[in-house]
Amino acid sequence: MADQPVTAALCIIGNEILSGRTQDKNLAYIGERLNALGIRLAEVRVVRDDEAAIVEAVRALSERYTYVFTSGGIGPTHDDITTACIAKAFGAEVERNAEAMRRLTAHYANTGIEFNEARRKMADIPVGAELIDNPVSAAPGFIIGNVHVLPGVPRIMQAMFEGLAGRLTGGAPVLSHTVACTIGEGTVAAGLGEIQARYPDVEIGSYPYFRAGQFGTSLVLRATDADRLAAAADEVRALVRSLGAEPIEADTSGESAA
Amino acid sequence: MADQPVTAALCIIGNEILSGRTQDKNLAYIGERLNALGIRLAEVRVVRDDEAAIVEAVRALSERYTYVFTSGGIGPTHDDITTACIAKAFGAEVERNAEAMRRLTAHYANTGIEFNEARRKMADIPVGAELIDNPVSAAPGFIIGNVHVLPGVPRIMQAMFEGLAGRLTGGAPVLSHTVACTIGEGTVAAGLGEIQARYPDVEIGSYPYFRAGQFGTSLVLRATDADRLAAAADEVRALVRSLGAEPIEADTSGESAA
Repeated sequence: MADQPVTAALCIIGNEILSGRTQDKNLAYIGERLNALGIRLAEVRVVRDDEAAIVEAVRALSERYTYVFTSGGIGPTHDDITTACIAKAFGAEVERNAEAMRRLTAHYANTGIEFNEARRKMADIPVGAELIDNPVSAAPGFIIGNVHVLPGVPRIMQAMFEGLAGRLTGGAPVLSHTVACTIGEGTVAAGLGEIQARYPDVEIGSYPYFRAGQFGTSLVLRATDADRLAAAADEVRALVRSLGAEPIEADTSGESAA
Repeated sequence: MADQPVTAALCIIGNEILSGRTQDKNLAYIGERLNALGIRLAEVRVVRDDEAAIVEAVRALSERYTYVFTSGGIGPTHDDITTACIAKAFGAEVERNAEAMRRLTAHYANTGIEFNEARRKMADIPVGAELIDNPVSAAPGFIIGNVHVLPGVPRIMQAMFEGLAGRLTGGAPVLSHTVACTIGEGTVAAGLGEIQARYPDVEIGSYPYFRAGQFGTSLVLRATDADRLAAAADEVRALVRSLGAEPIEADTSGESAA
């Protein structure tokens, strides 16, 4: 509800995420980091290793949001088709990028691993794209249009994202404050709705949790204006007390659910 | 690559997933369970608590896949707008459902918690929808068209999904086999691509991992035909041996990444 937020979308590419075999960790990381940069992650799509699905999702997200990030599918094997799909989405050709070749050649010379044709494929980059540094394993990502192409392996993706982060232009950072309480959602609902109506510029979410044998509710307030956030949080605390419970200021990140 | 697979999509609804505050656990659960039922989870979208975003995503997914599941946003608070949005997507009215009222009334009488207006909201169901039983906290989900509306809290979502599972009609279950090895993706890539070309009916994925100080690659084979799966797995093992490594048959679920 901030004015004119800078938005982003994430496209996670990979059959192994959809099969449930691999638990995605990139959504939460990117969502949290973008927040801190004043950018709102507004939509995520998870698609199969399938050209039509990737091209369609990337085009749709690219048209709609300020920044798009993709994760997955830029390795050396036959199922790594992301680069070709992104190029197709932008009507670009793919070329063997000289600078990417230089980086990969140096990396494999250092590690003593054979720099074979499969690994050279990782130097194939859409014409006109800008490389994203990979401080872990050399194989670069790239930026074309507003789309930032990153790998799926979390520790490599994170290192590459951090290299990019300083170049992303966000709006006002979104501040958040959590008030937890050991009363049910249904008990706070009416009063909470009234507070939300009085603070349209503060986004108030209510999330039930079950922890250490105790049910409770986390009330999460988010806003770009610190004073408005504090005022709304005061009202939420007063509401909780009026219902006979003590507000808990402990951070409950990651332990509740929608 | 199975013939005419039965497909599904998941729409995860909730700002707290996109902000990174809450780690989603429903994608992996639903993906894995659908697989076992012979249904392929083909796409996931994560959208904000925003009417336009929810309506558009649910309509798009409903037209394209056999089954759609949604998670999140059916609680008693002001940010729980899923039911109204799904009704809108199907051009249906929302009514206070008599059977849902009966279940909720009985539940709150048992627990001694006040059954107030906020909680009564959880009995609001689109006209013509069928209820989904909630064995944990009574508030039902519902089915309208091919869309199955479930809550976001994983333990409740899972219990409700299991109640539904017997009614979902899948194709042949997808069998999988993982061969891991301590050699790099780039080393197996060429041979693996050749095996994939000979087994178009077996989906072969390659996933690098880092575990116990050791890099390696998990090669995941998936098919509906057990004999073809076994034959392809034999070829993958032979490939790994030809490259000087010993195939590892240990299950590596959840430890690698795209």
